[in-house]
Amino acid sequence: MSDKWLGSLITDTAQDGYELAIKLSRMGVKYTQPSDDIRKKIRPIYEENADNLIASSQVIATHFQTVAAANNYWK
Amino acid sequence: MSDKWLGSLITDTAQDGYELAIKLSRMGVKYTQPSDDIRKKIRPIYEENADNLIASSQVIATHFQTVAAANNYWK
Amino acid sequence: MSDKWLGSLITDTAQDGYELAIKLSRMGVKYTQPSDDIRKKIRPIYEENADNLIASSQVIATHFQTVAAANNYWK
Amino acid sequence: MSDKWLGSLITDTAQDGYELAIKLSRMGVKYTQPSDDIRKKIRPIYEENADNLIASSQVIATHFQTVAAANNYWK
Amino acid sequence: MSDKWLGSLITDTAQDGYELAIKLSRMGVKYTQPSDDIRKKIRPIYEENADNLIASSQVIATHFQTVAAANNYWK
Amino acid sequence: MSDKWLGSLITDTAQDGYELAIKLSRMGVKYTQPSDDIRKKIRPIYEENADNLIASSQVIATHFQTVAAANNYWK
Repeated sequence: MSDKWLGSLITDTAQDGYELAIKLSRMGVKYTQPSDDIRKKIRPIYEENADNLIASSQVIATHFQTVAAANNYWK
Repeated sequence: MSDKWLGSLITDTAQDGYELAIKLSRMGVKYTQPSDDIRKKIRPIYEENADNLIASSQVIATHFQTVAAANNYWK
Repeated sequence: MSDKWLGSLITDTAQDGYELAIKLSRMGVKYTQPSDDIRKKIRPIYEENADNLIASSQVIATHFQTVAAANNYWK
Repeated sequence: MSDKWLGSLITDTAQDGYELAIKLSRMGVKYTQPSDDIRKKIRPIYEENADNLIASSQVIATHFQTVAAANNYWK
Repeated sequence: MSDKWLGSLITDTAQDGYELAIKLSRMGVKYTQPSDDIRKKIRPIYEENADNLIASSQVIATHFQTVAAANNYWK
Repeated sequence: MSDKWLGSLITDTAQDGYELAIKLSRMGVKYTQPSDDIRKKIRPIYEENADNLIASSQVIATHFQTVAAANNYWK
């Protein structure tokens, strides 16, 4: 992927950090399946599937640990 | 999501921190599936499903690590 | 949940810390499915299911990391 | 569980620490399913199941992080 | 595996670190299944499978924690 | 297991550390299923199964966190 999509892990607020964690989670899927068409085909399936929604939330939680530590927990 | 839903990771007590971890877990699902209607449809399924309940508890545990570290474990 | 169920993460011994980790794991399920009746119905299923037992042990392991760090590993 | 089964997280060697991580993993299953009979019935199933074996190894890995940190990585 | 594929965990930017995390994730699969032919056969399956895509993103998230800590979060 | 298989977590290079993480992952399976015959029977199944390959990579990632921290990220 030649695009620049990630600058810094530092964010102004905890909520911005959470939203960065979501972006980091989605990019993991995008790098693994780069085709927009295929991801678009899969999305409606996993977005209504409890297993997938909870697993997505788990990935976000893992990235949020990283982003929160990077920001010293916005203290 | 334009709403402000997350202020600080600092909480008065460990239990408040645990409840913040639950909120962080639920928001991961909400960002992935923003439709209230669809989430409402899925909820009764996963709330009676042991796999989903344990997986939800796993997400909470991951966020609780973050919140507890942010609060220096309320020591 | 209005009840106070979590005081401090500090425990006298490592084993007490492990048992607190179990409590933290169970509360994740309880907050997600607050009905005692439904949890009672599900329990006999997952308690005899290897996937669920191992996944429960994983949640405990994650919370034990938090509790052990809070107690500076009881050193 | 009234038995005392966990003393200290400190071990002489890294391998002893790994074996303590295994014990911590198994106790998570034992606390969730205290019946020796039922665990004995389930064991032959999950011990030949790749999913379960890998998931068990994941729980061990998580506990090994805790034990290794407690021992400052036996440095 | 006799090839040298991993030099340093230090990267210039956070995005480079993320891409290193992806490489670390893929190498875990490659070491477990060294046959290029078999991996090539499996790839089209898991690349269109939501469970697998999210699980891959979870592995990346875990490695990104390591790489980000190694780089002191590129601060 | 009476054999000595794990000496130190310290390795010369990051790649050596990664390969130690693989060994730690495999030993988790071996301790849970000590029979060489049964593991040999299961291996061809999970080595061609995407779920299992990704889950194995997840265990490696978790152990690599531990080994990398032990080595102060080979800095």
